[in-house]
Amino acid sequence: MSERPVNVGVVGMNYWGPNLARNFDRLEGCRLAWVCDRDEAVLDRHRAAYPGSTFTTDLDDLLRDDDLDAVVVATPVPTHAPLARRVLEAGKDAFVEKPLALTGEDANALAALADAGGRVLMVDHLLVYHPAVAKVKELVDEGRLGQVFYLYGNRQNLGIVRPDENALWSLGPHDISVMLHLVGERPSEVSATGESYLQPGVEDVVFGRIRFPSGVIGHLHLSWLDPHKMRKMTVIGSERMVVFDDMETERKVTVYDKGPIPRTETYGEYIQVRSGDIHIPKIPAAEPLRIVCERFVRAVRDRQPTPSDGPAGATVVEVLEAMSRSLADSGRPVALEAGGAIA
Amino acid sequence: MSERPVNVGVVGMNYWGPNLARNFDRLEGCRLAWVCDRDEAVLDRHRAAYPGSTFTTDLDDLLRDDDLDAVVVATPVPTHAPLARRVLEAGKDAFVEKPLALTGEDANALAALADAGGRVLMVDHLLVYHPAVAKVKELVDEGRLGQVFYLYGNRQNLGIVRPDENALWSLGPHDISVMLHLVGERPSEVSATGESYLQPGVEDVVFGRIRFPSGVIGHLHLSWLDPHKMRKMTVIGSERMVVFDDMETERKVTVYDKGPIPRTETYGEYIQVRSGDIHIPKIPAAEPLRIVCERFVRAVRDRQPTPSDGPAGATVVEVLEAMSRSLADSGRPVALEAGGAIA
Amino acid sequence: MSERPVNVGVVGMNYWGPNLARNFDRLEGCRLAWVCDRDEAVLDRHRAAYPGSTFTTDLDDLLRDDDLDAVVVATPVPTHAPLARRVLEAGKDAFVEKPLALTGEDANALAALADAGGRVLMVDHLLVYHPAVAKVKELVDEGRLGQVFYLYGNRQNLGIVRPDENALWSLGPHDISVMLHLVGERPSEVSATGESYLQPGVEDVVFGRIRFPSGVIGHLHLSWLDPHKMRKMTVIGSERMVVFDDMETERKVTVYDKGPIPRTETYGEYIQVRSGDIHIPKIPAAEPLRIVCERFVRAVRDRQPTPSDGPAGATVVEVLEAMSRSLADSGRPVALEAGGAIA
Amino acid sequence: MSERPVNVGVVGMNYWGPNLARNFDRLEGCRLAWVCDRDEAVLDRHRAAYPGSTFTTDLDDLLRDDDLDAVVVATPVPTHAPLARRVLEAGKDAFVEKPLALTGEDANALAALADAGGRVLMVDHLLVYHPAVAKVKELVDEGRLGQVFYLYGNRQNLGIVRPDENALWSLGPHDISVMLHLVGERPSEVSATGESYLQPGVEDVVFGRIRFPSGVIGHLHLSWLDPHKMRKMTVIGSERMVVFDDMETERKVTVYDKGPIPRTETYGEYIQVRSGDIHIPKIPAAEPLRIVCERFVRAVRDRQPTPSDGPAGATVVEVLEAMSRSLADSGRPVALEAGGAIA
Repeated sequence: MSERPVNVGVVGMNYWGPNLARNFDRLEGCRLAWVCDRDEAVLDRHRAAYPGSTFTTDLDDLLRDDDLDAVVVATPVPTHAPLARRVLEAGKDAFVEKPLALTGEDANALAALADAGGRVLMVDHLLVYHPAVAKVKELVDEGRLGQVFYLYGNRQNLGIVRPDENALWSLGPHDISVMLHLVGERPSEVSATGESYLQPGVEDVVFGRIRFPSGVIGHLHLSWLDPHKMRKMTVIGSERMVVFDDMETERKVTVYDKGPIPRTETYGEYIQVRSGDIHIPKIPAAEPLRIVCERFVRAVRDRQPTPSDGPAGATVVEVLEAMSRSLADSGRPVALEAGGAIA
Repeated sequence: MSERPVNVGVVGMNYWGPNLARNFDRLEGCRLAWVCDRDEAVLDRHRAAYPGSTFTTDLDDLLRDDDLDAVVVATPVPTHAPLARRVLEAGKDAFVEKPLALTGEDANALAALADAGGRVLMVDHLLVYHPAVAKVKELVDEGRLGQVFYLYGNRQNLGIVRPDENALWSLGPHDISVMLHLVGERPSEVSATGESYLQPGVEDVVFGRIRFPSGVIGHLHLSWLDPHKMRKMTVIGSERMVVFDDMETERKVTVYDKGPIPRTETYGEYIQVRSGDIHIPKIPAAEPLRIVCERFVRAVRDRQPTPSDGPAGATVVEVLEAMSRSLADSGRPVALEAGGAIA
Repeated sequence: MSERPVNVGVVGMNYWGPNLARNFDRLEGCRLAWVCDRDEAVLDRHRAAYPGSTFTTDLDDLLRDDDLDAVVVATPVPTHAPLARRVLEAGKDAFVEKPLALTGEDANALAALADAGGRVLMVDHLLVYHPAVAKVKELVDEGRLGQVFYLYGNRQNLGIVRPDENALWSLGPHDISVMLHLVGERPSEVSATGESYLQPGVEDVVFGRIRFPSGVIGHLHLSWLDPHKMRKMTVIGSERMVVFDDMETERKVTVYDKGPIPRTETYGEYIQVRSGDIHIPKIPAAEPLRIVCERFVRAVRDRQPTPSDGPAGATVVEVLEAMSRSLADSGRPVALEAGGAIA
Repeated sequence: MSERPVNVGVVGMNYWGPNLARNFDRLEGCRLAWVCDRDEAVLDRHRAAYPGSTFTTDLDDLLRDDDLDAVVVATPVPTHAPLARRVLEAGKDAFVEKPLALTGEDANALAALADAGGRVLMVDHLLVYHPAVAKVKELVDEGRLGQVFYLYGNRQNLGIVRPDENALWSLGPHDISVMLHLVGERPSEVSATGESYLQPGVEDVVFGRIRFPSGVIGHLHLSWLDPHKMRKMTVIGSERMVVFDDMETERKVTVYDKGPIPRTETYGEYIQVRSGDIHIPKIPAAEPLRIVCERFVRAVRDRQPTPSDGPAGATVVEVLEAMSRSLADSGRPVALEAGGAIA
């Protein structure tokens, strides 16, 4: 491990970029070397905050800097793939805002490019690094839930509506990335239905479904037209059920020791259920964004794999793309081929 | 209006029938004349409670009684249609447990038979008579919600699992009947997906979707494998949103004065939202089952229409049947023809 | 243990008596031999329900019955002590509605009488037998809470207001009996303040305080003029805190693994706190009233002690009486002498 | 009204002062002219944030500045009174952190001094300016609650424990200032009990009681040893009840249309209750601290009275002081004389 700090540049300072810049700037062992945006006026808003960084409107300045280790791409979604490609081709590691690309093909090409070049490619699927999700993942992996039957996510709110992105692409990457992470399988089929109430062609409400080869089902309820503010994932197992509720402050994860009693134990006509203790483990209050940034810096330094690497980020995009096709086709199921193709 | 009480007979005393018998027995202006079950042992359990009623194992005893006005059918689901047919053909009014029949064809035939004979046919869609649903219906009909966009029902629980009925047929009639009642349209298309985790071929979890000609969508989440006990219906309108939560005691209905601000008023790129007062109207504590029984007795006496009459009950069955087809076909949408046929 | 069932008679069928009669009647090993009330009309309301019991308006009929083992006193509060005295003097065991008497002197005299005669005297302090309270008691006794610092009860509601009993006597016995049971000490001093908003001289809202010799404090908030419906007891220990919330159905007891960190471990100027897991143990759904009745029948048969015996019931009355004095004297503390006298 | 901005200096930058400095600095029509602390190291931490302000360790520098209009005193509590006196004697307006002083005598002397000199004296009783409290005050003043019977505050938490301030002085000023503001009367008598579990002589838990001449009672539950985080005030009126819950984000104020039915309308033996709608008015999300600072700047400019002026702040201190006496004397009631003396 080198003593030199990891040098990072951030591209795109208009929306989420400033949060990333602030976190990388404060991280020990990391230096925010460059801040880049094509709009001078946007750059001017941030100059005072980072006196030690160099500001530029030209990404090539970053790519030409031999001391720069990694570039953070926080630009508008359609530019993620082309910019990430330039970063990887310049031999830099890349951290890309979600979603990684607009098509599975582009996303998989980026993953392959990173792999071929031995570069780190990490997507900002924040929730995958949330300590509460880590706890749920631990419960699943240790078999505490028994056999996982299904899981469902509720991401609902009354929120400002974006003119150019539907609820699926805007809200879905969170739940999809968590579901893929928890189940640990490549989905075999997805479907989605949705409606556009406020703007033609931009779905405000989307119900999605992911089928995994093992039979596990993931269900999504995504909406920005809702009286409830919900950010919740429920996982149903044969022995325990667990809820991750991100609107709670002290009760992020609740584990219910309840479930059906196998018929072999009861011999009755009906399947009985049992209901035991409820347990709410203490979840560390660490901020997910900070954890993500730390993980990226460590990956750059130690070349360790991360759970939101290129292939993982590409699968999220494939699911989004296949759900979009299903949305446009009245909810018809769309298969995801094993090799990465969408039928 | 006659001074004579309405004479009612109850058929089927094994499961829900006793609740109906008790309610009809206590109702003013109503006499529980007959109690019928094909099992003597079942009858014996109830003899002490109804000393003024005649007990029999033979439905024909009831049908031959010229003084009997109406028969309540609370037998197992597969027998609903044939028994209701015998009741109507005998010239009696009929109150039938939900669902009215196993097929839309049977259900519609019953509705036609009642209509032709001038007989009352009422289905026990309890929730339609719930004072909280009446309040929501009033808000919808008075335009207080603005344009209704969509609605969704959550009926989830960890419950004893029945070996012969899936979550759709067991839990669905409640939410479907309420949705049809609130929207007031015949659905044009439905779909459903679901999974059988505990018993092959018996879905424990079902997600359903109802499309109405006006564009309103109804979504169902039905499950008896869930850590939450939820009985909830949410209606999203352009001006207000309302939630009926049947697990609450004092807060059954919550009206949110919130919604999107029409873009014509804001001129911005994004659609803004507004959030105003929350109102929780007082809902009378009347028991829905008692209200249903009262409504039936009144219908028998005054020949007044009810919101869960033959055609309404038949549409619920058509939706259930079409969703079953969709379930068996990976969620493929199934159209409901205007004339009552399912495509 | 005799094979003969325990014969019980219930006196006072106007308010709570019918619930006791029903429970004793259904209990295995127990026979409801007598039902007694001085009002014939009241008796008539219950004759049909207990065909095997003898009805009378004269308590002496019961006291003269050599086969009768025990009498349940469920008459108006001022008659508890004189009737219980007659029962005990007749050599019968006695179960008395709470409070046992109107003065500590009368209550202690009854306890002494029962003791001298070797008779069972049990007071209906229902909550002491609640499975959730048993759980809290177990946590306290096993030292799971560390040192108990203090506890407080909230019993608030908007309820029908009784003209002849204030909130202290009406609601207080519940929380006082539980506190005495949990702490397991005779209080050394009590005080109370309260106000009469609806009727002169009848306090609607009472705040009470119990000091125990060990330094533990119990605080009461009793009110029937409140928007919240609360029935809650919170126990604060040095290592854990526990809440018993009787308005919850599935979460009656919540254990918080949180508390102050002893300064010896931190060495700082401030005392730090720690916050760990939350645990909600499964509490059996058994009905407390049924448990109380079972315990009484067992005590009659086996002469086993109960946690709401004469001395325990008498201490509750002493606390009520001393709080009443404090109420009338602007909250001045009133001492409870060790020997049972109130200073 | 002058065009010149109001010039403000902040004294005491160690704890709450930085929040005040930031707010005054950002306020339109206000200039943060001076930043003062006796500790150079503390000043150094804030120099970069306020390049336009002058920093000093000497309060006299501020008092000698003829252009300075007002001084904000945010120093440790024991220095509030002496520093505020110097500010007022120098002819400046004063904004003082709560509590205004350690004794009612000192606090009243400051109020008199401000009055005599025509100076603004305002205490930072933040909650009095909270939009939710303003809503409750409006409901009370418009008679919407009917006759106010009593009110109670819950301020509980598991928090870091201060070595030099008990729960009464640390948490009490919030609820006391709000109660005095809502009731609008000078209290006639107070009492308090409390216990010191963690440090001898420093009460962790305090129960307080305020009696107003009209008969209204205010009750306080203050604790930093509690599993619940509560910041709540409940006001009980004869016609409505209202709860201000500062832990809620969207439901700060809940109005319950419930209460007792006057006996004149029911003629029964018991007093009946009624329970109507629940209403949750939209409360603006404005930050109270910002509102307080704005109100002070306006008071300096326009000489308009504020609800937390010298006399109001002095009454809070009198209540604290009298409660402290009661605490030390086992809860004995302590009278507040009309003229400002404590009996």
